[in-house]
Amino acid sequence: MFLAQRSLCFPSGRAKFLKTISSSKILGFSASAKMSLKFTNAKRIEGLDGNMWIEFTKLAADPSVVNLGQGFPDISPPTYVKEELSKISAIDSLNQYTRGFGHPSLVKALSYLYEKLYQKQIDSNKEILVTVGAYGSLFNTIQALIDEGDEVILIVPFYDCYEPMVRMAGATPVFIPLRSKPVDGKRWSSSDWTLDPQELESKFNSKTKAIILNTPHNPLGKVYNKEELQVIADLCIKYDTLCISDEVYEWLVYSGNKHLKIATFPGMWERTITIGSAGKTFSVTGWKLGWSIGPNHLIKHLQTVQQNTIYTCATPLQEALAQAFWIDIKRMDDPECYFNSLPKELEVKRDRMVHLLESVGLKPIVPDGGYFIIADVSLLDLDLSDMKNNEPYDYKFVKWMTKHKKLSAIPVSAFCNSETKSQFEKFVRFCFIKKDSTLDAAEEIIKAWSVQKS
Amino acid sequence: MFLAQRSLCFPSGRAKFLKTISSSKILGFSASAKMSLKFTNAKRIEGLDGNMWIEFTKLAADPSVVNLGQGFPDISPPTYVKEELSKISAIDSLNQYTRGFGHPSLVKALSYLYEKLYQKQIDSNKEILVTVGAYGSLFNTIQALIDEGDEVILIVPFYDCYEPMVRMAGATPVFIPLRSKPVDGKRWSSSDWTLDPQELESKFNSKTKAIILNTPHNPLGKVYNKEELQVIADLCIKYDTLCISDEVYEWLVYSGNKHLKIATFPGMWERTITIGSAGKTFSVTGWKLGWSIGPNHLIKHLQTVQQNTIYTCATPLQEALAQAFWIDIKRMDDPECYFNSLPKELEVKRDRMVHLLESVGLKPIVPDGGYFIIADVSLLDLDLSDMKNNEPYDYKFVKWMTKHKKLSAIPVSAFCNSETKSQFEKFVRFCFIKKDSTLDAAEEIIKAWSVQKS
Ligand SMILES: Cc1ncc(COP(=O)(O)O)c(C=O)c1O
Ligand SMILES: Cc1ncc(COP(=O)(O)O)c(C=O)c1O
Repeated sequence: MFLAQRSLCFPSGRAKFLKTISSSKILGFSASAKMSLKFTNAKRIEGLDGNMWIEFTKLAADPSVVNLGQGFPDISPPTYVKEELSKISAIDSLNQYTRGFGHPSLVKALSYLYEKLYQKQIDSNKEILVTVGAYGSLFNTIQALIDEGDEVILIVPFYDCYEPMVRMAGATPVFIPLRSKPVDGKRWSSSDWTLDPQELESKFNSKTKAIILNTPHNPLGKVYNKEELQVIADLCIKYDTLCISDEVYEWLVYSGNKHLKIATFPGMWERTITIGSAGKTFSVTGWKLGWSIGPNHLIKHLQTVQQNTIYTCATPLQEALAQAFWIDIKRMDDPECYFNSLPKELEVKRDRMVHLLESVGLKPIVPDGGYFIIADVSLLDLDLSDMKNNEPYDYKFVKWMTKHKKLSAIPVSAFCNSETKSQFEKFVRFCFIKKDSTLDAAEEIIKAWSVQKS
Repeated sequence: MFLAQRSLCFPSGRAKFLKTISSSKILGFSASAKMSLKFTNAKRIEGLDGNMWIEFTKLAADPSVVNLGQGFPDISPPTYVKEELSKISAIDSLNQYTRGFGHPSLVKALSYLYEKLYQKQIDSNKEILVTVGAYGSLFNTIQALIDEGDEVILIVPFYDCYEPMVRMAGATPVFIPLRSKPVDGKRWSSSDWTLDPQELESKFNSKTKAIILNTPHNPLGKVYNKEELQVIADLCIKYDTLCISDEVYEWLVYSGNKHLKIATFPGMWERTITIGSAGKTFSVTGWKLGWSIGPNHLIKHLQTVQQNTIYTCATPLQEALAQAFWIDIKRMDDPECYFNSLPKELEVKRDRMVHLLESVGLKPIVPDGGYFIIADVSLLDLDLSDMKNNEPYDYKFVKWMTKHKKLSAIPVSAFCNSETKSQFEKFVRFCFIKKDSTLDAAEEIIKAWSVQKS
């Protein structure tokens, strides 16, 4: 009976109450309308419904596909991390609400760790906010500090949520691409991709509220060096701009590189929010815990957003994360410390991917950090002209490769605004935080494919 | 050295770059300004920084205080719930990202359960969204559907985040209080508190986008009956309005009462988002998982908000929750099923609290549902005139009681807008989902206090 009711689009009495709706609304209501006007989305999310992760994650869900797409490890997280969670789940009080801005033992561990890295005191209650992943930190920061009419500078390619988050805040993203120097003959490195300082300055003006920086960079693997960060810092100070520094891959830098925090540059602490991720730090992306660190005059606004959005993060995960941090904080100079051992482990995988991609004639960009590698796949000369045509080449390529080669990746133009997609649509991104058997399977696919071709 | 740099409020070059800031901004910049104008919060959170939980939770954190304040259980959550989490934390893949709109096994369990309760099919992928607690569901719903300039009807008293969440969306909350009939002599029940249908209709107009309903109600414990819900449903349909139905205490109803879902009333499914909470369902408030259920034409907008705010919720908690649900779904007619056993357990605690409060001459409002009881404390005739005067009576009372009697509670005027605080400031809220030893300790305090008085 209830189902029968539902199939009537207009409950009885509709004609009468429509009169109470303002006439302008009635005009917009077509005679055959099935939907109430009140069912529409709020304007702030207009046009923000597309999301490539949903599409590409679904494609890769086929168990016969070797998944080098979405950025999650299939290597085991450290045993002690999982064990801490297991132990803590048995403690009643740690299954109940905790402090909204961050579980006390976690903010204590974070302040202890980052005080070492920043070489300054950090107030665990006032200068740190624990969030639902780095993703949640980005959202909180943007909602707290970015207003309608503001401009926010995004460096292309960018982690894909930056643009819709800025738009949801009613602000205008202003884009600047990383550009590569010619590298004929030589190996291509993520450090060949740089910002032009003049071009960067041209993006700043009185409306610029913030720039979002990401180092080590997803998807390029670029690790910004001191000079590059100084250029950004100088402009932030000159134009009185905030810096949102997404450093989720802070521990994942490879030989010859060093991760630097722009918040430690003179004049920058007071205008920077630095963002980290438990998922990336301990290879537990499913825990969805992150943090923002910055001066209290900024963090307090993020705290206001937190208390009006989710109030608090999961207690057992926060406590387990705190315990895991203490284990590694106590052995930071030890090669066994996960902050040291994971990048060592990953560097081997990176090198393997470089060789593999090169061996089949592709041109990878060797990443200095992070756990992604991108490669120019246009060299494969694949004819994809029979596929849906309104998509960038890399989207078509990844769909084709997932379907026909059972190997998945992520198209790099997904990390671009619509105007710059064409600059990056030759590239696809492979994730290499994968166990050897997964990389073996990928190798087999890629090698067989190249034999077929030749 | 870095610290020295920081103490300079203006990095060198400030004078020069100030020129690049628009002159209107310079005018607002006082000569002694210490702060950049760019450090200000976004307008959407202006005035939303106050939060009583922070203040009262801090007060109650003193271990010598018996805490009947914040709404979290100190009884043990079911053993199987904790054990599921412990088992799952050992499984590598369940520590990684899962589907953004809800972990597949969890949305399947939720759709199975709610199909029974709604007596209709529910599409687990399109009509359910898993969120960071019911709190996160409320935020998502409001951000997705409420626009600047809209009006949202709130029933006073209300769970305190409703008002700032509506304001953060740029909308105007419109308040209507529950009013009590005279009950001279008789016991006071939460069902004596009702909405006046004419008064309620007077709050609806063409700008009304939604009404937020909460049943069972926090803090009153009111369980709306069929006639009351029909009045609300009729008005929602007449004025083409959405209904956001916060049903986090759906299982916690006491003898003689039945929880009804407004979404099952004719014409309401299509315009209702119903919100639930794992924290309240399984007594694990620290897990911070919740869900929204509704028609795809509304849920899809909440999904858009999700993918631009946090992307996904914690995987191990979602999987453990799914497993816990299956255990109880399979024995729903069994008194052992937690959905049945918890309200039975709580009803005894409720009755104990009623008698205790009555025995010392207080006038509790007997709740029909939920795990809170409110009582008129003005009958204690406490002289609080020497305390800070710009606060409602109940705020002062709770602070006094926490400090001097080592018993904490929550002031009911915290659940009111500023205009209605005076109507509720005689009341404080006690949480009774507490083990017997906690209730014993509370009883001792209250009884000793009443002896002192007499
Ligand atoms: C650059 C960057 N920022 C933020 C995130 C989100 O991190 P989390 O999973 O902690 O929300 C990711 C995840 O891939 C990322 O690559
Ligand atoms: C009425 C009501 N709604 C929502 C919530 C928030 O629930 P959760 O902890 O699942 O976010 C609460 C918590 O006390 C509540 O009482």
